Amino acid sequence: MNKSTSQATSSRGPVDHNVRTQIIEAADEHFSHYGYEKTTVSDLAKSIGFSKAYIYKFFDSKQAIGEVICANCLETIIASVQEEIGRSPTPSSKLRSVFSGLVKHSVELFFQDRKLYEIAAFAASEKWPPTIAYENEIKQILLQLIREGRETGEFERKTPIDETVSSIHLVMRPFINPLLLQHNLDLVEEAPSLLSALVLRSLSP
Amino acid sequence: MNKSTSQATSSRGPVDHNVRTQIIEAADEHFSHYGYEKTTVSDLAKSIGFSKAYIYKFFDSKQAIGEVICANCLETIIASVQEEIGRSPTPSSKLRSVFSGLVKHSVELFFQDRKLYEIAAFAASEKWPPTIAYENEIKQILLQLIREGRETGEFERKTPIDETVSSIHLVMRPFINPLLLQHNLDLVEEAPSLLSALVLRSLSP
Repeated sequence: MNKSTSQATSSRGPVDHNVRTQIIEAADEHFSHYGYEKTTVSDLAKSIGFSKAYIYKFFDSKQAIGEVICANCLETIIASVQEEIGRSPTPSSKLRSVFSGLVKHSVELFFQDRKLYEIAAFAASEKWPPTIAYENEIKQILLQLIREGRETGEFERKTPIDETVSSIHLVMRPFINPLLLQHNLDLVEEAPSLLSALVLRSLSP
Repeated sequence: MNKSTSQATSSRGPVDHNVRTQIIEAADEHFSHYGYEKTTVSDLAKSIGFSKAYIYKFFDSKQAIGEVICANCLETIIASVQEEIGRSPTPSSKLRSVFSGLVKHSVELFFQDRKLYEIAAFAASEKWPPTIAYENEIKQILLQLIREGRETGEFERKTPIDETVSSIHLVMRPFINPLLLQHNLDLVEEAPSLLSALVLRSLSP
């Protein structure tokens, strides 16, 4: 159930991006009306007007479709955050942008569309590959900006950099991971700036 | 439903601590077998051999009984943490003790007894008065040890102390609040020490 199927699917079936995209879009639409967990591949097939067998030519399972939707959603968040980082002049302001951007876009994506939240929460609890990749991407972004801050002398250099990255990621995680974020929605206005300030104090040389 | 009844109950009914204690103990036992949400005051009355009316002489509602159980449980955690603080020589080591102690005792209490977890999680999501009091007690403990660290020169004094307390509490919260802790159980070994170290770096003068 929990096994990644994304590798298998990407090299499977006719190389027809249009059909894949069509299935993903229809599934996205269908899930947001009826929910991910309640939908079967048969339901999807019926709603698109394809046979179940035809869908299986492109995707191994419902989860494989869910993973693509989930990955697209997480990529949107990363892209928006990258844009905001690009507009921030210093490593400190980049860190603040990463945190506030991640929280803002996560709240928008996950909680303005409750059915998308359902897929995201399910994916996070089942540790689907796109959610692991997403965590790693965030850690990479943090690593890069901490390196930059160490080079410019803005951040301390004594702590092993991996420890710095892991601990900052742990501070941010409750406001990024949809399973935790659902219990923190009344804190999203205040917490990111308070926590960014604490993290920046911990980084001062 | 959500209204505090603890004040009302403490001044209500015959002043008979034994009966109150008897009801609480029986309720605790009953909840841990059948769960808080599924139990009614009638079920409780039957299992103790009291009439429902007699129980209502001592407690306004099922929630009033649940609040006492919840408060007792949270007081146990605070008492254990206070003991550990007493054994820690410096403000820094006290901070580490508070964090690791809170996580250790929360995991023990909430997750070794799943039914107690159910009450704790319900109480946290409904913001029962004992959970608010508990959060405030933790903030008071933090305030005291940060004051001490500022006096001894171990901690910086530039940041407004209320901000320092709130932000440290936000860092700890995902490992204390049972609603969040349930999603963090695979991090309880590693996270408290990583996060204590980050917090202590943020406190350095």
